[in-house]
Amino acid sequence: MNKVFPVPQAAPAPTLAPLDGDLITARLKELAAFTDVPGELTRLTLTPAHKRAAAQVSFWMREAGLTQVHMDATGSIVGRYAADRANARTLLIGSHIDTVRNAGIYDGNLGVMTAIAAVEALNAQGLRLPFAIEVAAFADEEGVRFLSTLTSSKAMAGIFDAKSLEDVDGQGISRAEALRSFGAPADRIGECRRDPDDMLGYVEVHIEQGPVLEAAGAPLGIVTGIAGASRGHVRVRGEAGHSGTLPMAMRHDALAAAAEMILAVEARGRANGDSLVATVGTLIIAGSAVNVVPGEVQFSLDVRTLSDDLRLRAVTDIRAAVGEIAARRGVRASVDIGHEVPAAPCHGPLKERMAQVVESLGLPVVRLPSGAGHDAMVFRGVMPMAMLFVRSQNGSHNPREYAAPADIGRAAEALHAFLLKTAAEM
Amino acid sequence: MNKVFPVPQAAPAPTLAPLDGDLITARLKELAAFTDVPGELTRLTLTPAHKRAAAQVSFWMREAGLTQVHMDATGSIVGRYAADRANARTLLIGSHIDTVRNAGIYDGNLGVMTAIAAVEALNAQGLRLPFAIEVAAFADEEGVRFLSTLTSSKAMAGIFDAKSLEDVDGQGISRAEALRSFGAPADRIGECRRDPDDMLGYVEVHIEQGPVLEAAGAPLGIVTGIAGASRGHVRVRGEAGHSGTLPMAMRHDALAAAAEMILAVEARGRANGDSLVATVGTLIIAGSAVNVVPGEVQFSLDVRTLSDDLRLRAVTDIRAAVGEIAARRGVRASVDIGHEVPAAPCHGPLKERMAQVVESLGLPVVRLPSGAGHDAMVFRGVMPMAMLFVRSQNGSHNPREYAAPADIGRAAEALHAFLLKTAAEM
Repeated sequence: MNKVFPVPQAAPAPTLAPLDGDLITARLKELAAFTDVPGELTRLTLTPAHKRAAAQVSFWMREAGLTQVHMDATGSIVGRYAADRANARTLLIGSHIDTVRNAGIYDGNLGVMTAIAAVEALNAQGLRLPFAIEVAAFADEEGVRFLSTLTSSKAMAGIFDAKSLEDVDGQGISRAEALRSFGAPADRIGECRRDPDDMLGYVEVHIEQGPVLEAAGAPLGIVTGIAGASRGHVRVRGEAGHSGTLPMAMRHDALAAAAEMILAVEARGRANGDSLVATVGTLIIAGSAVNVVPGEVQFSLDVRTLSDDLRLRAVTDIRAAVGEIAARRGVRASVDIGHEVPAAPCHGPLKERMAQVVESLGLPVVRLPSGAGHDAMVFRGVMPMAMLFVRSQNGSHNPREYAAPADIGRAAEALHAFLLKTAAEM
Repeated sequence: MNKVFPVPQAAPAPTLAPLDGDLITARLKELAAFTDVPGELTRLTLTPAHKRAAAQVSFWMREAGLTQVHMDATGSIVGRYAADRANARTLLIGSHIDTVRNAGIYDGNLGVMTAIAAVEALNAQGLRLPFAIEVAAFADEEGVRFLSTLTSSKAMAGIFDAKSLEDVDGQGISRAEALRSFGAPADRIGECRRDPDDMLGYVEVHIEQGPVLEAAGAPLGIVTGIAGASRGHVRVRGEAGHSGTLPMAMRHDALAAAAEMILAVEARGRANGDSLVATVGTLIIAGSAVNVVPGEVQFSLDVRTLSDDLRLRAVTDIRAAVGEIAARRGVRASVDIGHEVPAAPCHGPLKERMAQVVESLGLPVVRLPSGAGHDAMVFRGVMPMAMLFVRSQNGSHNPREYAAPADIGRAAEALHAFLLKTAAEM
């Protein structure tokens, strides 16, 4: 136990305000005003709304006592809270501030706001720890605008793929161009890498985005690992024709074929109970019109589970079902899995320390996997990683997602306590 | 028999060029260059490409000897070939020059080009008939840009609905605004109406858009009537959520529900053999993303058959299936039929005259209904109406639709002969 710094024995008064759930909730609402679509929160990566949100986050970071606050080469905002000594290692705490379309205000943003709050509380206490803290507001987690995603955290993990700079969005804008417009120095992405030897690890607070904690009556949850994912798309090519004159028996309707395939994806997802999910989230009909029998359809595919083996078997089964339906209906279909990520288990010691902190707050300790992908997963095999879930309602990726201010306050307290406990155990 | 004009006993030489199928095909290809999407033919109503096409059609009309060539208040191009006498009645010949997205070059345009060719042949022969001829290149038949359609022919029939001026397209542009940009004097739509007492009727040449004539080995077909249509959309509201964390058993996936409904529409269409068609041509997921379980989906519905009773029963069955699927899946669904058109039988004497003309050309006489809607249908109950179908391949509403130049030449010859026979029988 390293005792060169004063470990507080009880929550001191100055820390209450930064860790207060109502204050953090107010900031989340303020941040939600930065949107590209008025009336809803839509802040895809590297958009004008994202840039305004990043400026606001930079302001809060500086207010919290973080220094060297800057935009990195992937568009992330990063700030540093120096250690109490030279040559100390660094703990990275982060989450993302990009959102899906018509999003809720908690997904990603909550992790950034609680990280800032935890540092702000340390700063208010006048505490420096035997390790530095970096807070990162990652730029690219949702994967809505470009096919590739997690590029910000990947750059820090040193596994950024330069090909993702060539990805184009729906308007034909490449990621490289988007970074340039955003003001990010994209030619310096190599400098984002953190040397694992200098790092204590990565910690992320996030809403659960699922119903497990709510059902268990637990405000916080210890993440055991992050599910692996196979993502891609299915393209179906039939034959277009006039909706009034092409007899039913002579049709090769790409949409009807796709409909049958979507039901097959759903059935395969259901076949493993709660341990696997399979989703079709997007569907586009080429040249669609009310009076045209669809000739070509493309839809997305997203399969996730903690078991890499089960996931690959499910994708194989879906390929077989798509092929059977296509052959029977006389259409052509191809399944292209462009994104394949193995499951990422959380780091045992970090995870158990987080569990002890949650227990010390008088809360039940619930351990659960993450069905959603997170920035944390890219640190698999690079540095120790842990996650803390916050109970949430109404799932996520929709405007009704909700985390209670009281639970948010507990998450900030837990993170703050985790920092102190980490210091105490060094 | 009125014999004040010289009825030719054999096809005279000067008429060959205007009625030549290769010449008409060349014009169709020239017209297809007017597109809003380079590399394909996409010429939705009242767009810049439509305007350039309208100018080209006006030029050909004047070249053919038509006079008073003008744009009417709905954006149609109309020209007149005067009668050999004062106070003569008028025969209207027309079709449309708007297209679907990624269209073929024949649908609509063929009818306008053959009408111009038939008049051009009369003009080359120096013939005036005891009735005037008007050729119309209608502006709005496909119904892709706005929900309402057939507004050009409806204005001539005197059944234009002023409410359709308030229709908005996907960009929020109203039809009234689109007409203004197009240069059409939209405030004078009332003047488009033709007094039925002044009219001999309406005749339209069109590709079949189906496989019947091809299967029968007949270049031309006599249309018995136009199928009625019920068109609208189905809206499905489930619950959006995160694709990774929402367990399959707790989902209310609007797209999976829609997929089941699409298959129910297809099954209902198939239940009546070739006498009914039911199509879902468009589908939109609100706020779609690869990693979001779809919360809201809207898709189109298009049901057609020659029997109005059968059509209404099919729509009732589809409503019931949609309701059952929605209830079972815990989603809400509504079926909104916005467009309901009864079947339109062709006029007996005009139809039989067309059959005699086709027979006189040495061709088989095949009678068939039209599963597609046409401008002709709006004249139901207003004035006599007849249609001539041209054999086509690969359906329609796709770039592979095809009518052979030889068949196109036969259609132009038949229309020209129909005009002479109409004159001879007056």
